[in-house]
Amino acid sequence: MTDSSSNKAARSPSGDPYLLTPGPLTTSLTVKQAMLHDYGSRDAHFIDLNARILDRLIAIVNGEGRYVAVPLQGSGTFVVEAMIGNFVPAEGKLLILINGAYGQRIAKICDYYRRNYQIQESAEDVPVDTAQLDATLQADASISHVVVVHCETTSGILNPLAEVSAVVARHNRSLLIDSMSAFGALPVDSSEIQFDAVVASSNKCLEGAPGMGFCVARESAMEKTEGNSPSLVLDLYDQWRAMQKTRQWRFTPPTHVLLAFDQALNEYEEEGGVAGRGGRYRVGIFKPF
Amino acid sequence: MTDSSSNKAARSPSGDPYLLTPGPLTTSLTVKQAMLHDYGSRDAHFIDLNARILDRLIAIVNGEGRYVAVPLQGSGTFVVEAMIGNFVPAEGKLLILINGAYGQRIAKICDYYRRNYQIQESAEDVPVDTAQLDATLQADASISHVVVVHCETTSGILNPLAEVSAVVARHNRSLLIDSMSAFGALPVDSSEIQFDAVVASSNKCLEGAPGMGFCVARESAMEKTEGNSPSLVLDLYDQWRAMQKTRQWRFTPPTHVLLAFDQALNEYEEEGGVAGRGGRYRVGIFKPF
Repeated sequence: MTDSSSNKAARSPSGDPYLLTPGPLTTSLTVKQAMLHDYGSRDAHFIDLNARILDRLIAIVNGEGRYVAVPLQGSGTFVVEAMIGNFVPAEGKLLILINGAYGQRIAKICDYYRRNYQIQESAEDVPVDTAQLDATLQADASISHVVVVHCETTSGILNPLAEVSAVVARHNRSLLIDSMSAFGALPVDSSEIQFDAVVASSNKCLEGAPGMGFCVARESAMEKTEGNSPSLVLDLYDQWRAMQKTRQWRFTPPTHVLLAFDQALNEYEEEGGVAGRGGRYRVGIFKPF
Repeated sequence: MTDSSSNKAARSPSGDPYLLTPGPLTTSLTVKQAMLHDYGSRDAHFIDLNARILDRLIAIVNGEGRYVAVPLQGSGTFVVEAMIGNFVPAEGKLLILINGAYGQRIAKICDYYRRNYQIQESAEDVPVDTAQLDATLQADASISHVVVVHCETTSGILNPLAEVSAVVARHNRSLLIDSMSAFGALPVDSSEIQFDAVVASSNKCLEGAPGMGFCVARESAMEKTEGNSPSLVLDLYDQWRAMQKTRQWRFTPPTHVLLAFDQALNEYEEEGGVAGRGGRYRVGIFKPF
């Protein structure tokens, strides 16, 4: 957005320097001010706010009526681990497309979970080779799921999501997407590409405070995940079913982070959604909050 | 603190009613205002703030030099699950002392983790029977760990922590404590009672915002947990070792929640720590923030 030298001079309205980190980024003052309130997690206002957030996440993938959204406490990696644990069953096999640290981390999660997996790796500056993916899926019928990192946070490399999706769909396998550093600024449109689940977090392109992630999943795929999760707290199926019944989180949500996220989504929509947010990032316009 | 009828009239300085929930509670305005800043998770100021928080958590259990503190993203249940997964090895056996929903939830975690366990249950208004605990440990040498809920959030029942600890220590087993609703207001003093790990969260008696929990563990016990965790994100050993090396969280921390927690700990110390905070709760003085 700006270079380090001008950053030394520029200060946000909170008096702090603008953050140029890949992790938590500078949020607007109004997003931070939304956290100046306390809500009980079972309060009607708070429950409505959560429903509104989830509906808007589904709308970002154009998934109304076909996709469901499930929130999860923690950082982005928490919901990546949850996606792997929920969607890849113990008898499944995951093909991990790797060209950076976040792809490597998914392999590490599979090691913890003792899930069967295979990797297809390229250098950090080389996008996923879809011809190789095609050949691998052709050769190995036991691969049930493919996971791709949309945009690698570490290098910023962008993977060809539409092409990957087309190959995976042609072989009738299930596609999982880690869109942590892209979601909201680059399209993940379920009417154009096929995928079973995408995960992202509150604190990247949607410009909220860190503390929660979410999974937007095809409802028919989510329904099949019952009993798969090796973890209670990361059980997205259980969280989804509980929220369908009570509209409440199973375990204490980060209430202030959600208040900030709701406001961040207001500002995201005001900016024009994927087109507006992505457009600003693309031309590198510095927005002085 | 106050009854519901007076709550209708009383408003905090943020204009909201005071929360009388067992979950997120009303925080002071200064705690919320601490969240009006953005910090990168690798920023020197933020790293120092984290070290200061962890040191103060160790001080609350009088554990300087013998205990270590490890923070974890998520709600209290996240760190309870992490404690079970890290401290009870696959070949261990856990005795769960149950008299409420949170004890039951630990059994559920063991079901997910396929950990060997046994329960000792009493009614929700009956504290743990330490004579029965003594007999059970006497009879079953395979029980390696005992876990107790200090104060059940659902009913408010207080379990006899010192007596439980004495029995467990006499049988040379390892004690794990879920002190979610008591930590900071009731003593968990490592110079008076023996335990290997205690977990609690930012948003109960320490009066911070929700979004993180922590584990304070005897260093010699923590050292033995390597390789036990079935989950990457909940691996407290890995988090501990990484923070020893880099003083940073492995995965994006809820930065604003930590800013609030640091301020909440300032106010906790100003109130006089366990004696002051617990004293106020005991006499039921309503503190108009």
